[in-house]
Amino acid sequence: MSDPDLPETLDAETRLAHQPRDARPELRLWLRLLTCTTMIEREIRRRLADRFQITLPRFDLLAQLDKSPEGMTLGEISRRMMVTNGNVTGLVARIAEQGYVERRRDEKDGRVQRIAMTEKGHEDFVRMAREHGAWVRELLGDLEPGEREVLMSLLARTKASVARASAPRVEAAE
Amino acid sequence: MSDPDLPETLDAETRLAHQPRDARPELRLWLRLLTCTTMIEREIRRRLADRFQITLPRFDLLAQLDKSPEGMTLGEISRRMMVTNGNVTGLVARIAEQGYVERRRDEKDGRVQRIAMTEKGHEDFVRMAREHGAWVRELLGDLEPGEREVLMSLLARTKASVARASAPRVEAAE
Repeated sequence: MSDPDLPETLDAETRLAHQPRDARPELRLWLRLLTCTTMIEREIRRRLADRFQITLPRFDLLAQLDKSPEGMTLGEISRRMMVTNGNVTGLVARIAEQGYVERRRDEKDGRVQRIAMTEKGHEDFVRMAREHGAWVRELLGDLEPGEREVLMSLLARTKASVARASAPRVEAAE
Repeated sequence: MSDPDLPETLDAETRLAHQPRDARPELRLWLRLLTCTTMIEREIRRRLADRFQITLPRFDLLAQLDKSPEGMTLGEISRRMMVTNGNVTGLVARIAEQGYVERRRDEKDGRVQRIAMTEKGHEDFVRMAREHGAWVRELLGDLEPGEREVLMSLLARTKASVARASAPRVEAAE
């Protein structure tokens, strides 16, 4: 457990086993992509916890709500964040305890409950978002602007390749 | 909900709010990296479920066990997969129901329980791993070998930058 780059070490040996030899270059690329994402996300999670005692899903929920001054229903949050209704309910409950969000009746339809950010939630979120940006800048800070541009365009190519090869998304009729 | 590239659309608008303007290039890069990883992982999850009725954590657990013919303790699995002991217990229980793993007493210390792959688990895993490799090859198939190489080296630079800027990992004393 002494390797600071555990995820790639782990995944590279693990996930390359029994894989077709001719798929190795693509697999190595996928594992490296996964490692980079995992390392950045882990560091952001840790800093959010250390600095603001907040988890990444709560931060993402605040980011969603910050764009919706009229609030969002649980169903809307669930769809936007691609998590189940059950998970959203717990998430909202915990962040309400922190004083960041509150439940309100919809102005037009009193049967509908909306989740909206409190003033404190907005203020704290703005501070968190600023620090989050500074963290990402620091984490990726060794890349030169030219490298960043090439990486952006190769990742756009990657995204297009994955989108082409993915099964079409079946949208819920709802 | 009609955008097939939902994650980046979602994250890009969301996570760029209130972020320092001078961090925008790095934030865009991070969001694109995250989008690529999310899209690939989502597609792999879907195919594992469709083809083999298996989740990604279970597939990763099989991959771990496949390398350990003598089996692993719950604690070892937990450390290798970086998940809590409680989660590992449930994961092992579900995959044992599928007939892929079994519990064994340690040969040297009968108090220790080891989780080991069954013959069926090994055979099915080999088939899954081969298909998984072919999927990744297909998903990343539009990238030319030269593009792949540049991307690999820029991701290595990214990884090094993140590692340098990350807080050192504090290992558990245990």
